[in-house]
Amino acid sequence: MTTTNRRARRDARREQRSKLAAPLLSLPFSPPKSPLPPLQFCSPEQIEQLHLASMQILEETGICFMDTEALQIWERAGARVERESQRVYIDRSLLLETVASAPEQFTLRARNPARNLEVGRNNIIFAPQGGVVNVTDLDRGRRSGSMQDFENFLRIIQISPVTHLAAEQVIVPAEIPPSVRHLQRVPRLFSMTDKAVNTTAHGRIISADHMEMARIVFGDPLPDEPVIIGIINASSPLRYDERMLGAMITFARAGQALIITPFILAGATSPISVAAALAQQNAEALAGIAFTQLVSAGAPVVYGGFAANLDMKTGGPAFGTPEGAWTALVTPQLARRYRLPCRGNGTLNNSKVADAQAALETSWTIWPTVLAHTNLIKHSIGWLEGGLTVSYEKIVMDLDDLAKFSHFLNGFEVSADTLALDMIAEVGPDGHHLGTTHTLGRFASEHYQSILGDSLNYESWAAAGSWDTPRRANAIWKELLAAYQPPPLDPAISAALHDFAEHRMRELEGENLYL
Amino acid sequence: MTTTNRRARRDARREQRSKLAAPLLSLPFSPPKSPLPPLQFCSPEQIEQLHLASMQILEETGICFMDTEALQIWERAGARVERESQRVYIDRSLLLETVASAPEQFTLRARNPARNLEVGRNNIIFAPQGGVVNVTDLDRGRRSGSMQDFENFLRIIQISPVTHLAAEQVIVPAEIPPSVRHLQRVPRLFSMTDKAVNTTAHGRIISADHMEMARIVFGDPLPDEPVIIGIINASSPLRYDERMLGAMITFARAGQALIITPFILAGATSPISVAAALAQQNAEALAGIAFTQLVSAGAPVVYGGFAANLDMKTGGPAFGTPEGAWTALVTPQLARRYRLPCRGNGTLNNSKVADAQAALETSWTIWPTVLAHTNLIKHSIGWLEGGLTVSYEKIVMDLDDLAKFSHFLNGFEVSADTLALDMIAEVGPDGHHLGTTHTLGRFASEHYQSILGDSLNYESWAAAGSWDTPRRANAIWKELLAAYQPPPLDPAISAALHDFAEHRMRELEGENLYL
Repeated sequence: MTTTNRRARRDARREQRSKLAAPLLSLPFSPPKSPLPPLQFCSPEQIEQLHLASMQILEETGICFMDTEALQIWERAGARVERESQRVYIDRSLLLETVASAPEQFTLRARNPARNLEVGRNNIIFAPQGGVVNVTDLDRGRRSGSMQDFENFLRIIQISPVTHLAAEQVIVPAEIPPSVRHLQRVPRLFSMTDKAVNTTAHGRIISADHMEMARIVFGDPLPDEPVIIGIINASSPLRYDERMLGAMITFARAGQALIITPFILAGATSPISVAAALAQQNAEALAGIAFTQLVSAGAPVVYGGFAANLDMKTGGPAFGTPEGAWTALVTPQLARRYRLPCRGNGTLNNSKVADAQAALETSWTIWPTVLAHTNLIKHSIGWLEGGLTVSYEKIVMDLDDLAKFSHFLNGFEVSADTLALDMIAEVGPDGHHLGTTHTLGRFASEHYQSILGDSLNYESWAAAGSWDTPRRANAIWKELLAAYQPPPLDPAISAALHDFAEHRMRELEGENLYL
Repeated sequence: MTTTNRRARRDARREQRSKLAAPLLSLPFSPPKSPLPPLQFCSPEQIEQLHLASMQILEETGICFMDTEALQIWERAGARVERESQRVYIDRSLLLETVASAPEQFTLRARNPARNLEVGRNNIIFAPQGGVVNVTDLDRGRRSGSMQDFENFLRIIQISPVTHLAAEQVIVPAEIPPSVRHLQRVPRLFSMTDKAVNTTAHGRIISADHMEMARIVFGDPLPDEPVIIGIINASSPLRYDERMLGAMITFARAGQALIITPFILAGATSPISVAAALAQQNAEALAGIAFTQLVSAGAPVVYGGFAANLDMKTGGPAFGTPEGAWTALVTPQLARRYRLPCRGNGTLNNSKVADAQAALETSWTIWPTVLAHTNLIKHSIGWLEGGLTVSYEKIVMDLDDLAKFSHFLNGFEVSADTLALDMIAEVGPDGHHLGTTHTLGRFASEHYQSILGDSLNYESWAAAGSWDTPRRANAIWKELLAAYQPPPLDPAISAALHDFAEHRMRELEGENLYL
């Protein structure tokens, strides 16, 4: 083969591949609503057993609220508080009455109203990864995250119609000091995307800065509906620390939404059996949710679940397991028991590379999570290594999967048109349906078109370079980055965000703001 | 590092890895029963629309039975038969009355009674791949299948507790002439495994040989319950050919079980819309099932589904799609409408290698198929390339996934023991559950242990050689082959099978037996 021929073939390949992302980019922004009844694993009797067990835990063992103001709030509500041990014993009638003031569904506002989100009932929101420190891609390998990666992930989240929420913790930019990271990340979150935002919820000081930046974007006073959703983790077993409680108070008082998520590792932070893990998770989540309602009755709040089990070989968390599938199915069942929106997780896995293990463990997380009607699916793109690392290529795999779920949940039509009995009669037993008017009329739009799945035959695939999935995904995330356009933003808001961040960075540099 | 050190490290790694398959091999042979209600995608009204559409197809368009004896059977039953076009027009009352004689559940006998299978209701059977011509593995790459591969697959099926059925068509041994393949494969099937067998069902002559070999193993006359299950494909649209009809007559008369599977490629062998594909599949499957009942009322038969859609880029079948998930969910709904056992498919995908695409597309097939209570899941291991190739490494990935589904469907216990409220109270908010009596007592047995998922942290994984999933799978299938032990078989039966095959091979060599 001559050099010219080789170059022509390479150019043709490149041309063909430059359109890989097109089917994804042409989808509408449209968070799915499940048409199916939620998939449930436990019987109503078992749900009641789990409920009663968690009531007993909160009444008899109690739960620590490691913050003086929080303990005062519980005392005022009538709970029995042991000041020295910081334990709160919560009576089931107090707990359930308090939890009952939380809304079953709420609107989370985005700065672009077309991106507002409904949280609760049969709505499903795909949210990006969080809490990740490393990044990896085929070109540069594994490394610490940087502000450049943060910006890249915001671009991908913004351009992709199937990531419904933008998030602050998609990567830790290692080069930015911890105390000012929120001042570097949140202005970018509000300017590089126009989607609703999920931020950190760390202590009173950082959280107050979040509220200030939200006011710059959404006006002061803030709208009645929340414009930020923060993530709270219980320090299982049975504890909320001062950093989390300060944020919970600050968010709830400002009417902003919170996701209350115990992190249960069965065998370490809870007993090893799944039933105990779920009962303890339920106790912790409900205590946190009740606390937000004591701070501000009616504050929007989401019942969160993140229960893994101890891996027998490593002592770390095991992901993508049957146990994880059970908890993914039962957590929303419990949330519905209390008429609360539910948060779950999309792509939990322990793989070190974006290979079959990563995909299989992800499927064991995302399938039960979607079918259970989990309202907000965190970590729905990118995870590897139990969430330590985000992979650019894995993001593409997950985006394709989320698009497939969106299409799947939209369902198909059964009607005279789609049954096409006239075509079946006309073609009969002696022909085929290639080229019929019915086929031609629907060919381009009838079925979902994957951006990632290669359906060439072996010979054509080999002739085109034998690209495996990560290699194709590598080409696609570059297309997504290239397609990004910053959404319009009032220059005055942009300047005010910038000024606020600059000013606060000077004030906060070197501080320890985790309280 | 010295050579000795290197060798010691390598030996240590090998030692550790030689136990990878142990958790799989220690599982019991125990086909799962789903504890959940079946996942359904269509409403009862939509199922009725699909039903009525297929009745109209069979009454007005009719279906070809391309075999003189088959047409006579339909005529005797009272159907309107057009001899010249070979079309049969089947009235809905005749069809439904005839289908009603098929059993809702039946026992498929294995030569080892401990491996007998219940087919129907909420029983789920994992069956191996079929109709595959190429094999691939990391060591030797992609090549035509051989008798050595056939034997290897039988060894893996026999040794693995989660493959419940052995099968004749797991690979085409290219070196054996087509007319005598059954004589080479079936004796091995009956001697190298003691599981129930799924054979070809090709024409009267080959099928009669199958019956003869079954009599050698199970006695003459054959037991009342079937000992072989054969697969029939409609030649969609709306045709059964002579080869299939000859086998259907032979199997049904001998009381052996059949799986009646139209192969629908929406946009080619049916109209492109999913509703039409399902209605046509239903018409074809029911016509085939009714035919088996006319041959022998009460003959055990399974309603099969295999509906894919045309891939827009290649014009071939697309697998692992949302459309495929819909058909996987609705096919068993339709089968239940007629109180019939249902066959689906486990690992359909178009990937050329055992990578993330292979895994993701597989998950889009196996998840809905299992959750829909598909009673017999064909192709549940090994597929690549739309079923042209079977991968040794992909087999291992799928075995691990099937073991996870078995564990998942077994469920978990909610009881005073598993809720462990005493442990939660004892540990309280200040401790952890590592090393408690509850954790230690359940540590080794509580959770599923994957053979394939690597949960090491990045550094340990890298130090151990950075093995990705196919590389680990490669080590595991070799372990499975090494662990194989032939099940005991009466030497007289073995000799008789051998003699029969020798004798028939001399008779049949060079014949065209497809009729």
